[in-house]
Amino acid sequence: MPSLEADLVSLLGPDRVSTTAADLAAHSTDKWFASSAPQVVVHAACTEDVAAVLRYADAHGVPVTPQGAQVGYVGGCVPLHGGIALSLKKMNRIKEINTGDGVAVVEPGVITGDLQAAVRERGWFYPPDPASLKECSLGGNIAANAGGPRCLKYGVTRHYVLGLEAVLADGTVVKAGGRCHKNKTGFDLVGLMVGSEGLLGVVTEATLRLIPHPPMRAMLSAGFGSFAEAANAVGRILDSGYLPSALEIADKFTLRAAREYLGESVTPQGDAHLLVELDGQEASVKGELAALAELVRGLGCICLEEALGEAACERFWKLRREFSYSLRNTGLIKLNEDIVVPRSRLVDLVDFAETLQGEFGFPVACFGHAGDGNIHVNIMVPTMDDPAIRERAEAALDKLFHQVIAWKGAITGEHGVGIAKERWFPHAVSEGARALHLRLKQALDPKGILNPGKFVR
Amino acid sequence: MPSLEADLVSLLGPDRVSTTAADLAAHSTDKWFASSAPQVVVHAACTEDVAAVLRYADAHGVPVTPQGAQVGYVGGCVPLHGGIALSLKKMNRIKEINTGDGVAVVEPGVITGDLQAAVRERGWFYPPDPASLKECSLGGNIAANAGGPRCLKYGVTRHYVLGLEAVLADGTVVKAGGRCHKNKTGFDLVGLMVGSEGLLGVVTEATLRLIPHPPMRAMLSAGFGSFAEAANAVGRILDSGYLPSALEIADKFTLRAAREYLGESVTPQGDAHLLVELDGQEASVKGELAALAELVRGLGCICLEEALGEAACERFWKLRREFSYSLRNTGLIKLNEDIVVPRSRLVDLVDFAETLQGEFGFPVACFGHAGDGNIHVNIMVPTMDDPAIRERAEAALDKLFHQVIAWKGAITGEHGVGIAKERWFPHAVSEGARALHLRLKQALDPKGILNPGKFVR
Repeated sequence: MPSLEADLVSLLGPDRVSTTAADLAAHSTDKWFASSAPQVVVHAACTEDVAAVLRYADAHGVPVTPQGAQVGYVGGCVPLHGGIALSLKKMNRIKEINTGDGVAVVEPGVITGDLQAAVRERGWFYPPDPASLKECSLGGNIAANAGGPRCLKYGVTRHYVLGLEAVLADGTVVKAGGRCHKNKTGFDLVGLMVGSEGLLGVVTEATLRLIPHPPMRAMLSAGFGSFAEAANAVGRILDSGYLPSALEIADKFTLRAAREYLGESVTPQGDAHLLVELDGQEASVKGELAALAELVRGLGCICLEEALGEAACERFWKLRREFSYSLRNTGLIKLNEDIVVPRSRLVDLVDFAETLQGEFGFPVACFGHAGDGNIHVNIMVPTMDDPAIRERAEAALDKLFHQVIAWKGAITGEHGVGIAKERWFPHAVSEGARALHLRLKQALDPKGILNPGKFVR
Repeated sequence: MPSLEADLVSLLGPDRVSTTAADLAAHSTDKWFASSAPQVVVHAACTEDVAAVLRYADAHGVPVTPQGAQVGYVGGCVPLHGGIALSLKKMNRIKEINTGDGVAVVEPGVITGDLQAAVRERGWFYPPDPASLKECSLGGNIAANAGGPRCLKYGVTRHYVLGLEAVLADGTVVKAGGRCHKNKTGFDLVGLMVGSEGLLGVVTEATLRLIPHPPMRAMLSAGFGSFAEAANAVGRILDSGYLPSALEIADKFTLRAAREYLGESVTPQGDAHLLVELDGQEASVKGELAALAELVRGLGCICLEEALGEAACERFWKLRREFSYSLRNTGLIKLNEDIVVPRSRLVDLVDFAETLQGEFGFPVACFGHAGDGNIHVNIMVPTMDDPAIRERAEAALDKLFHQVIAWKGAITGEHGVGIAKERWFPHAVSEGARALHLRLKQALDPKGILNPGKFVR
């Protein structure tokens, strides 16, 4: 489509438009399996670039797929219908950090970890902490309403977005919300955009809420003989009036893989592992760490380690991240599903994972955010290239998702629907709610320009 | 319109439909000035009642104004266009409290304080605490996205709504969200309904997030010589890494009225007052209370009292509530505007209130949630019945609201827009955002059945 490229060049200048094979390939995919090349990549440098692209696309019926750092896990930014891949990577300025007002104003391409570090230097805190924070962008976090371990205490990305500038499918620039920490002026347009996976608008600026940085952190790392005991500890900690900043659990398959990869000595003992993180004032955190250690010891843990302070906690988190690498080290492919179950179903989930393993022959490793029931269930398959194995893997996933839905769980807690979860979307979301999705899509993007081919169409 | 009544009786039975003068009058208003009678009052008892009313209203073009406990401050539930007042008061069952999952399932008519108490009995916590919690309903809280002092640490009502059942304008029943603490399945339909002030749907059931109850509370009550010193203390407390559960400020007019009403001895000294509330584990709270007391003493406070534990804290809160009664006791009418300013503007706001007072001759009392910049600015007028005084009062309000907007503040932090704030809505919300409001309203309620005459039309 040479005229598309030429039109965009004449609109935006040659520097922002690319059709090199390398650029098209680089903008075809994210961290999931799907791949589909755009016809043109636009590297937007400002809001007006985005508006110009969308006015043009609206007039000519060209698909536009917004892209952030392209590190999503569900194919959400894959340009399924070709057209324009609209990259926001170059819009990466932190425009303002104002601790007096408790806000940061950012462009969407800012890397999440970079904002956190810049805010931290001023003694303040931007809590959302997706595992990919060193490479994911705030625009992507907003599109997916990203979570992370600390959501348990601090809430998801939505809770930190005070204001947005977004460009609608027809090129209209809309400012919603503002820089106040409370605002009840009209409908929640900010919330409508957050988590909409590029289907309703393109975020070009965000005003984020900052909170005071808790001066101290501490952690417990506890091994248990069984998953049921670790899950029981989760409930008992909460019942005792603690809301830790994180409550992370791992099952025996995860630990077994860690032992093989990292060695016996580093990996906690037992068939289940629990991480508890606390933060706050130094003296408080020290006292609570001791009290929680006593509580957890009384619940039958077979090993327990404590960490106090940034460096010690980071070592525990590093071990937690190694769990993920250990699974990759098995040589198997990790089908990482970020399902959520009501918290009382944690043990049922892990038991069910075991029956899946028996039925389909794939190992299943469960670990994740126990405090909010958001468990990463990893079905470990030897390959996705062999059609027979792939079919069996998909059948195992179907069984998992239908069980999660039967438990009133959610098919995605933090990754989004994208392409990966589309086939379970109609089962997870009621007919009325799906019809409402369509009404909203038609109201905001009647021509279906934005991220076409995804779960609302 | 006798046929309207007859039709509704034949749909719902006689017990749920009323046209008595008393009932019509009782359902004409809330806590604001506006009053407009419906033609019929429907007392819904179940979701199907609500759906039947809306199917009928949709078919016959009859206005429907949903009503909760009718204790709002902006006329949001006043049936401006007559028609049906749809009261949800009788749908007041707490259907489930499940601490294992951390959820409560409620009907919209449940009184907020009743849910809090029931949850508290189980050792858990539903944090949103609007001042009217003993009389307001959860449905009303959801319609207004209600706040309260504790929002500073715990967030507003939106952050506690996991799932909703709502009836759309055409009678369709939609279930959105669920009972999981994290859920990224599709668009944020729950957020779209929360805070939509009865314009987009009628909530018939809500699944609310519960968190562990912090076992201990403590408070500081500090008097300062000037508002600037109290506002400085707010900033310094946050900069020191504390996120108190509440940070409440009051200015000298408020304190003066309190002295007259309550007496010198009970009212804190000085021209500004600061309340700080902490909660958490007992030992932590005790230590933090001492540390904060030292910090605040070092910031020049002229009197300081501490409270530890439920009963002592409640005495401080009672005093804080008396501030409001003291203002009423002046014999003046309190025009209570819940504006929000970026936190760094607190002193500017109070200085501006003083110039308003000079220019218009009305006393202006400011107090409220300093931590998030949400200050209740009370313009005290002798009467709203004298047209000349009323005109002057409205001019003072105009000036206040335009200044707040110029500071990038918000015209409402917790009460909503309703009728009271409608004339500032177009100034506070960008043209693009207003157009988007209209698109959403047309998508969800194309015939304008729901709460007609309000700020989106």
